[in-house]
Amino acid sequence: MTEPHTRPVYRTALGASDLKTITLLGHDLAEDIMGSVGFGELAFWLATQRRPSPGETRVFEAVLAALADHGFTPTAIVTRLTYLSAPDSIQGALAAGLLGGGSRFLGVTEDTGRFLHDVLESLRGAVPSDEAGWDEVALRTVQEQRAAAKFVPGLGHHVHKAGDPRTPRLMQIATEEGLFGPHLSLFAAIGRVHPDVLGKTLPLNGAGVCGAALADLGLPLPLLRGFALLARAAGLIGQLAEELRHPVARDVFLSVDLNNTSVAPDPFTPDPLEEGRTG
Amino acid sequence: MTEPHTRPVYRTALGASDLKTITLLGHDLAEDIMGSVGFGELAFWLATQRRPSPGETRVFEAVLAALADHGFTPTAIVTRLTYLSAPDSIQGALAAGLLGGGSRFLGVTEDTGRFLHDVLESLRGAVPSDEAGWDEVALRTVQEQRAAAKFVPGLGHHVHKAGDPRTPRLMQIATEEGLFGPHLSLFAAIGRVHPDVLGKTLPLNGAGVCGAALADLGLPLPLLRGFALLARAAGLIGQLAEELRHPVARDVFLSVDLNNTSVAPDPFTPDPLEEGRTG
Amino acid sequence: MTEPHTRPVYRTALGASDLKTITLLGHDLAEDIMGSVGFGELAFWLATQRRPSPGETRVFEAVLAALADHGFTPTAIVTRLTYLSAPDSIQGALAAGLLGGGSRFLGVTEDTGRFLHDVLESLRGAVPSDEAGWDEVALRTVQEQRAAAKFVPGLGHHVHKAGDPRTPRLMQIATEEGLFGPHLSLFAAIGRVHPDVLGKTLPLNGAGVCGAALADLGLPLPLLRGFALLARAAGLIGQLAEELRHPVARDVFLSVDLNNTSVAPDPFTPDPLEEGRTG
Amino acid sequence: MTEPHTRPVYRTALGASDLKTITLLGHDLAEDIMGSVGFGELAFWLATQRRPSPGETRVFEAVLAALADHGFTPTAIVTRLTYLSAPDSIQGALAAGLLGGGSRFLGVTEDTGRFLHDVLESLRGAVPSDEAGWDEVALRTVQEQRAAAKFVPGLGHHVHKAGDPRTPRLMQIATEEGLFGPHLSLFAAIGRVHPDVLGKTLPLNGAGVCGAALADLGLPLPLLRGFALLARAAGLIGQLAEELRHPVARDVFLSVDLNNTSVAPDPFTPDPLEEGRTG
Repeated sequence: MTEPHTRPVYRTALGASDLKTITLLGHDLAEDIMGSVGFGELAFWLATQRRPSPGETRVFEAVLAALADHGFTPTAIVTRLTYLSAPDSIQGALAAGLLGGGSRFLGVTEDTGRFLHDVLESLRGAVPSDEAGWDEVALRTVQEQRAAAKFVPGLGHHVHKAGDPRTPRLMQIATEEGLFGPHLSLFAAIGRVHPDVLGKTLPLNGAGVCGAALADLGLPLPLLRGFALLARAAGLIGQLAEELRHPVARDVFLSVDLNNTSVAPDPFTPDPLEEGRTG
Repeated sequence: MTEPHTRPVYRTALGASDLKTITLLGHDLAEDIMGSVGFGELAFWLATQRRPSPGETRVFEAVLAALADHGFTPTAIVTRLTYLSAPDSIQGALAAGLLGGGSRFLGVTEDTGRFLHDVLESLRGAVPSDEAGWDEVALRTVQEQRAAAKFVPGLGHHVHKAGDPRTPRLMQIATEEGLFGPHLSLFAAIGRVHPDVLGKTLPLNGAGVCGAALADLGLPLPLLRGFALLARAAGLIGQLAEELRHPVARDVFLSVDLNNTSVAPDPFTPDPLEEGRTG
Repeated sequence: MTEPHTRPVYRTALGASDLKTITLLGHDLAEDIMGSVGFGELAFWLATQRRPSPGETRVFEAVLAALADHGFTPTAIVTRLTYLSAPDSIQGALAAGLLGGGSRFLGVTEDTGRFLHDVLESLRGAVPSDEAGWDEVALRTVQEQRAAAKFVPGLGHHVHKAGDPRTPRLMQIATEEGLFGPHLSLFAAIGRVHPDVLGKTLPLNGAGVCGAALADLGLPLPLLRGFALLARAAGLIGQLAEELRHPVARDVFLSVDLNNTSVAPDPFTPDPLEEGRTG
Repeated sequence: MTEPHTRPVYRTALGASDLKTITLLGHDLAEDIMGSVGFGELAFWLATQRRPSPGETRVFEAVLAALADHGFTPTAIVTRLTYLSAPDSIQGALAAGLLGGGSRFLGVTEDTGRFLHDVLESLRGAVPSDEAGWDEVALRTVQEQRAAAKFVPGLGHHVHKAGDPRTPRLMQIATEEGLFGPHLSLFAAIGRVHPDVLGKTLPLNGAGVCGAALADLGLPLPLLRGFALLARAAGLIGQLAEELRHPVARDVFLSVDLNNTSVAPDPFTPDPLEEGRTG
């Protein structure tokens, strides 16, 4: 029932092992990585297959710290409720929380990084060399978004209306490490010029500046959300650890369940296709 | 870089297709299944690779109905919160909700089915033929659990203290279809005899009777939880559909977030190993 | 540390219970639903809060059958591998499989339903009343997609190049039940006219016709993918049941692991922004 | 429809924010954590609510490095296949992979930590102070496991039969940092004495030594698996990054799909209860 055929080949530069050795990214895991490579550094290395410099690691870890935990976010509540319901599966509680890392709550980082990158690419190499030049690009960018009735990703915050403290701090760290590149430059310029266009001053939010910083680090844009998820994984383990000792999930569940009000069904029928006939 | 080797073979009796035909479980999907096999019937068939009788299908679908939705359970809240946070991924919201289907909330069905089955197997074929015989087995069973300081799965309910309405109904349906087998017989007997042992009357709960009925249907015990999850998948799609039109997730989230109180860290250190020294 | 405040209210028409009764969708679960409502019918009812007619149920269940299982799809392999790796968590194996229900493999159903609906809405009520009228709309639709270098969702199949057997069968069932509505009409017309525009004949695929049929049933468009996921949940439980008795996951894992080839890291750096300068 | 009631209070020491400040674990996130706390250090801090020493961080990060990626494990394959099937949802691909972090593949770390801890607790404070004392405890432990026909968690490896290189390295790092505590002592002793009991020499595996080291760090035992999952999250992002540039998932999928063989259904019926009658 079997027959000769061509053996498939699956290539990877990540983990590999033989009888005596385990390698990771071409290095001896035990001798060259364990004990000398930090976890943030390793995560960067795994994602890019190049070892980051100490400065890159510092900026990267500052981003991860900025995104690790924001208290009782939907992701945190979901992880705690899932643990309440299925305490036999830590991996399920963690996975459930991460599944909230989509477009609305954790997506800003990726959206901002991609948005800034698209603007930069549209310059076709004519990258500004001073603040005035960046302000010009930013002004055009904000005007175009406004004309298209679109938001500028990374602009605005529902709590930190007068400024998100993570933003100047991350910019400072990136500057200290010589990693304040074009994405952060454009983002900062958007912060300076948008009030003239929008008629109000909005904060550059922390999720957005993280996206700009990750893009300046040269990390793959399709995975920016992945780094936000990695940071959140650490935060969710913190949430689980706290839930184990000081549980709130049962109270959250009961606050919903006990305030439940049964209402009559509201049968759904789609809008009729004829609706537009008057148009 | 490739070389001849033995081709692997992966066998399945489920879906298969060639240029003109699609088969499922050895039948022509389009001609023999679509339009004539109901969804509950198909789910049973897929899980057992045998087509259920109409009576088996009726009992099975009654179980699925009993387990589909219980209002604002943790699973329902989780699905709604995940949709709030990541509306781009319906599959993520559904998966997150199902991950709560673990030992505590959806596990009773499986636990009860397995527990009853273990008792039945311990009879080594001496299966009672009348109610008095079942009462004797049940009495011994409840006594042994009590002696071991263990609960009897499926016994007790935090709301339906005077009786879970699903229990007599499912027993009635199983009786009507000639499918009231040993698991349901033992479960019913436990309901009759436990007050004498425990000194109080507890209801046989709906999740438990579903486990007994699924076991009497001959479904694989390691998958009983899977059927609870299938039922819940339909319920969670209902929750999502309602959330789209009458959202509550944002209110749930805010009720937690706005009532958050920041407290000082409570550093964790494990209990010292010396603790037992006095023992 | 607590203070009076306004009690939140969470409304639902789905499951509710009190001491003696459990209701679902405003009906007594035990008396009115268990034993008389099939699982497909119930899933439809939960999603729309209206009870479907027998004809609607038949079309709906035909769709679910069409989508339940396609053999060793990525979702099936993922569920089996996750079970291999974490056999303690059936819910994790099921959830992992469903997470593959995204844009590429299970998304066609939703994409097709939405696409057809958008075209129908653009008619602003001028819905054709005969086949010639539909052909005209379909011709324009295919031409516009081609001009925009876009695919027509639901058109084409990598195996069933000469026709997907589910398509005529589902159209036949919908016709029998008087539920062959505008979405199916437009889809069928696309099947008739596209060769003239594209210069080749492609099959109308099963996932696509399912999307058209679900849209004609008046189900909520943002949840069409949800029904594909529900169908697949039944299929994945079938995959798990087969894996328990006739496992293949370990062989799949080893076929990858044993054919792994370690390669040198390929350091990632993003394309330089200057690239476009020559443009 | 609302009424006064007691406001719920949800306490957390993790993230909190007001108009101007964001705190994490009681510290100013921007000023005190970003730029000065590494990611591994932060993850430890979040899980225990106490800041680890540099030595604790080094051991912890060595563990995370040891567990981050092992090439084409089921978790890695699952993440890649889920991305193939649903490229719109990075969070889904990551979550699906983590769901494989259950009892079999990632559970050894937790199982070993718990097992060693149980043995240590059973000593009721009589913790050995030299190698001979540990050998005695270890000998009794291995003998008891053997008598009970149970494995010793952390002992044995399917590839590194002559020794897992991570084990001596992690022991060395823990020794250097003064963190070679009772769990590692007992584990090392098991390595020394088991051949006398079992009649063969098995390696102390890397997952096991990681569990011992995490337990010696005083991390919460119920979350040991959580740290393995955190490490794996970084590895899975590496897998995704590689899949984006050098994909293998489609080949894996096709290698299964194209080698699929359709077989006849194998109807499942449970073993008859009468089977034991002869007993």
